[in-house]
Amino acid sequence: MRLDKPVPVQWIAEFIGAEIEGNANGRATGINEIHKVEQGDIAFVDHPKYYDTCINSAATVIIINKDADCPDEKTLLIVDDPFEAYLKLVNHFRPFSPSSKSRSDSSSIGRDSVIMPNGFIGNHVVIGNDCIIHPNVTILDHCVIGNNVIIQAGTVIGSDAFYYNKKTNRDIHYKKMNSCGRVVIEDHVEIGANCTIDRGVSGDTVIGAGTKIDNLVHIGHDTEIGKNCLFAGQVGIAGSTKIEDNVILWGQVGVSKTLTIGKGAVLYAQSGAPASLEGGKTYFGSPAVDAREKMKEFVWIKRIPQLWEKVMGKKAEG
Amino acid sequence: MRLDKPVPVQWIAEFIGAEIEGNANGRATGINEIHKVEQGDIAFVDHPKYYDTCINSAATVIIINKDADCPDEKTLLIVDDPFEAYLKLVNHFRPFSPSSKSRSDSSSIGRDSVIMPNGFIGNHVVIGNDCIIHPNVTILDHCVIGNNVIIQAGTVIGSDAFYYNKKTNRDIHYKKMNSCGRVVIEDHVEIGANCTIDRGVSGDTVIGAGTKIDNLVHIGHDTEIGKNCLFAGQVGIAGSTKIEDNVILWGQVGVSKTLTIGKGAVLYAQSGAPASLEGGKTYFGSPAVDAREKMKEFVWIKRIPQLWEKVMGKKAEG
Amino acid sequence: MRLDKPVPVQWIAEFIGAEIEGNANGRATGINEIHKVEQGDIAFVDHPKYYDTCINSAATVIIINKDADCPDEKTLLIVDDPFEAYLKLVNHFRPFSPSSKSRSDSSSIGRDSVIMPNGFIGNHVVIGNDCIIHPNVTILDHCVIGNNVIIQAGTVIGSDAFYYNKKTNRDIHYKKMNSCGRVVIEDHVEIGANCTIDRGVSGDTVIGAGTKIDNLVHIGHDTEIGKNCLFAGQVGIAGSTKIEDNVILWGQVGVSKTLTIGKGAVLYAQSGAPASLEGGKTYFGSPAVDAREKMKEFVWIKRIPQLWEKVMGKKAEG
Repeated sequence: MRLDKPVPVQWIAEFIGAEIEGNANGRATGINEIHKVEQGDIAFVDHPKYYDTCINSAATVIIINKDADCPDEKTLLIVDDPFEAYLKLVNHFRPFSPSSKSRSDSSSIGRDSVIMPNGFIGNHVVIGNDCIIHPNVTILDHCVIGNNVIIQAGTVIGSDAFYYNKKTNRDIHYKKMNSCGRVVIEDHVEIGANCTIDRGVSGDTVIGAGTKIDNLVHIGHDTEIGKNCLFAGQVGIAGSTKIEDNVILWGQVGVSKTLTIGKGAVLYAQSGAPASLEGGKTYFGSPAVDAREKMKEFVWIKRIPQLWEKVMGKKAEG
Repeated sequence: MRLDKPVPVQWIAEFIGAEIEGNANGRATGINEIHKVEQGDIAFVDHPKYYDTCINSAATVIIINKDADCPDEKTLLIVDDPFEAYLKLVNHFRPFSPSSKSRSDSSSIGRDSVIMPNGFIGNHVVIGNDCIIHPNVTILDHCVIGNNVIIQAGTVIGSDAFYYNKKTNRDIHYKKMNSCGRVVIEDHVEIGANCTIDRGVSGDTVIGAGTKIDNLVHIGHDTEIGKNCLFAGQVGIAGSTKIEDNVILWGQVGVSKTLTIGKGAVLYAQSGAPASLEGGKTYFGSPAVDAREKMKEFVWIKRIPQLWEKVMGKKAEG
Repeated sequence: MRLDKPVPVQWIAEFIGAEIEGNANGRATGINEIHKVEQGDIAFVDHPKYYDTCINSAATVIIINKDADCPDEKTLLIVDDPFEAYLKLVNHFRPFSPSSKSRSDSSSIGRDSVIMPNGFIGNHVVIGNDCIIHPNVTILDHCVIGNNVIIQAGTVIGSDAFYYNKKTNRDIHYKKMNSCGRVVIEDHVEIGANCTIDRGVSGDTVIGAGTKIDNLVHIGHDTEIGKNCLFAGQVGIAGSTKIEDNVILWGQVGVSKTLTIGKGAVLYAQSGAPASLEGGKTYFGSPAVDAREKMKEFVWIKRIPQLWEKVMGKKAEG
């Protein structure tokens, strides 16, 4: 997320009770978790495995639980629990502020857009022109909807990311990473009924122009969907994944997190992608492989009894 | 969809700017896309591959982008873009008319039916007697609900078909085919929570009497479900498919479009039907095959290492 | 379900028109279907296959359609149709009473809990402290929500069980078993958007403390989820299943009914569990097996063509 105005690192250090290392006169212009950092951002790191990655990322201000070498121009803010410090900042700059009304006064709705009854439109939501928002739709704070967008009944835009910090001090439990990102839906997108599109943890979940999404589809946080994609019913896409333009996902396809599905790829129904897939090809199966290879596998499996009989000299019980 | 009264082809031709070929004195009594046409219907065709099918269908009035031989008694209406002409007619005869109220005055609700709070009931919706419509349910225009029907919370009845006209002139993109059909739910049906049932593109999506549907189930446009079927949670059925009576689909089953699942067929959980299946049998797998055959396949796959050792004279690395 | 006060079996016998066998002076303290009975309960049985199980269960009062030996201290109530008699009792002691308001006066909401607009909170619902209930959420009668619980938009808590009595007298059809159980959500649980959690048929569906559930997840009736579990998007769990603590289910996993998933088990995305699984292991596939075994199977399948060539002395067509 972008901050409304640059914030001095001195103020941040005092606010979260941190010791400053490196540049004490800098200013932060945004807050982001490590997958999304840009220059000017505050990021946090609490695991030795990621210290180097975070310190050498684009982030300008790094909240960390260890004294480390600080690159020029950057600022380390040293605290005992960087995750809690990060949450404190998120909650300060983007506090949860529940609306008591179905439509927040700070939302804006464009020319000739129709909002059907019983929906909810949160704080600072922007809806463009010529949209149809069907009944019982929920659009949560800060989400941005383009022009000529149709959102069918019961859909939720901007639900929180499914993103937790695992704690194992005594027992395993999970601490919620509060989401401060947005959902951005571009022009001419259509989203079916009872879908869910999570906001980014700190960045944007994006649905590219012209993409059409069927019912009961789930799109995870920070996922970026290209232009003119087609997703059939009950497709699920996990967080921080990139789906390039013109991808077609048939019914009940699942795509795992932090991977890329290349331009124009087609996944047949119920396929599952645990890893990135090249564009321009057709896939099937879980895990998804080239669809023709998968079809051949089915044929080969049927030939095992014949092999058995030849090798063993007798039939096996089926 | 049926038209309220017969409409002269002369008027239609003028309205969409078409040249008339064949019977100039006919009247149209309905509008349908090619999968659903009945006598009296207006249909459209814009691809040479389907010219003959459409001209020789039951349709009485054919909107087409080519001069062709016109069978006796029929009317061809020749335009540059039949799809746009068809949309113009749909939008004229069944315009999208948003309700600003949660329950439209033109809807009708039968004796002893209970409508729980925060739902939406659209224009011309008919609900029978002794129904329970739970909270936050959306029932969109023209849908018809029988007697003794239960619809659980959050379900959407009559969302638009996921049906687009692919345009490839410059870039791939998709033009929405506006849905003017209905959902018809017969007596003693129960539909679970947060389900979605799409309306027909121009005909009816039908849920047969006595059928019970669990939560988060998706039923596509123009699909016809028989009587006394059972669908467990998260089942998805694509458009224009026919499910005959007494079919049982266990959890997360997917059924593809425009096919038939025969009477009394049972599909085990997570099965996927890419093609029609005979009734009276039990299926498993994706793609779904006879369940016993599938179980045998699992056994055969486990025997491959034994075959390998016999043939190769040594064990393979697993 | 527990009855508000003990009810004499004499009254029950008269109310359902039953003949009394055994203890005519007992009192019932609860009503439960056979999977959930406790001492003091009324249960019913109508199939010879289950007579002994039911009579020898913890139930104190058994509604049955046959004269049978009655154990000491118990009461048999003999009627023609035990299922209908059971339903009559359920409907008497827990009648369906629709609210006309979005929030029932008999519900209670704790300190600092936020209820966002357009939700529904039914009769006798109890919500603890510091909860956030997002817009368009439906919480039905008698459900209990702990402290620090987050329920995201569009979710339905307490929908009816998918549970029917199959009737085959003339034709197959299904008679609804009315649900009188509850959903109990413990502290620090988070439930995603557009999920559905069914109430128990007569007992409780329980979500254990600290468990985090992503969007579009379905949890069946009477299912008990342990503490600190993680369920990713579109997971489906059927009825009366037990998921122990710290179980992780990745996206689109399906778990069948009446089984147990052991503590700390992990199921990879799209896996399906048709039978119980031991804790502490990682599983994959449908049906789910040890994940490493499944991975080896994929390797072995790829070796079939090599075996074929060796055995048959030639390549096969793919």
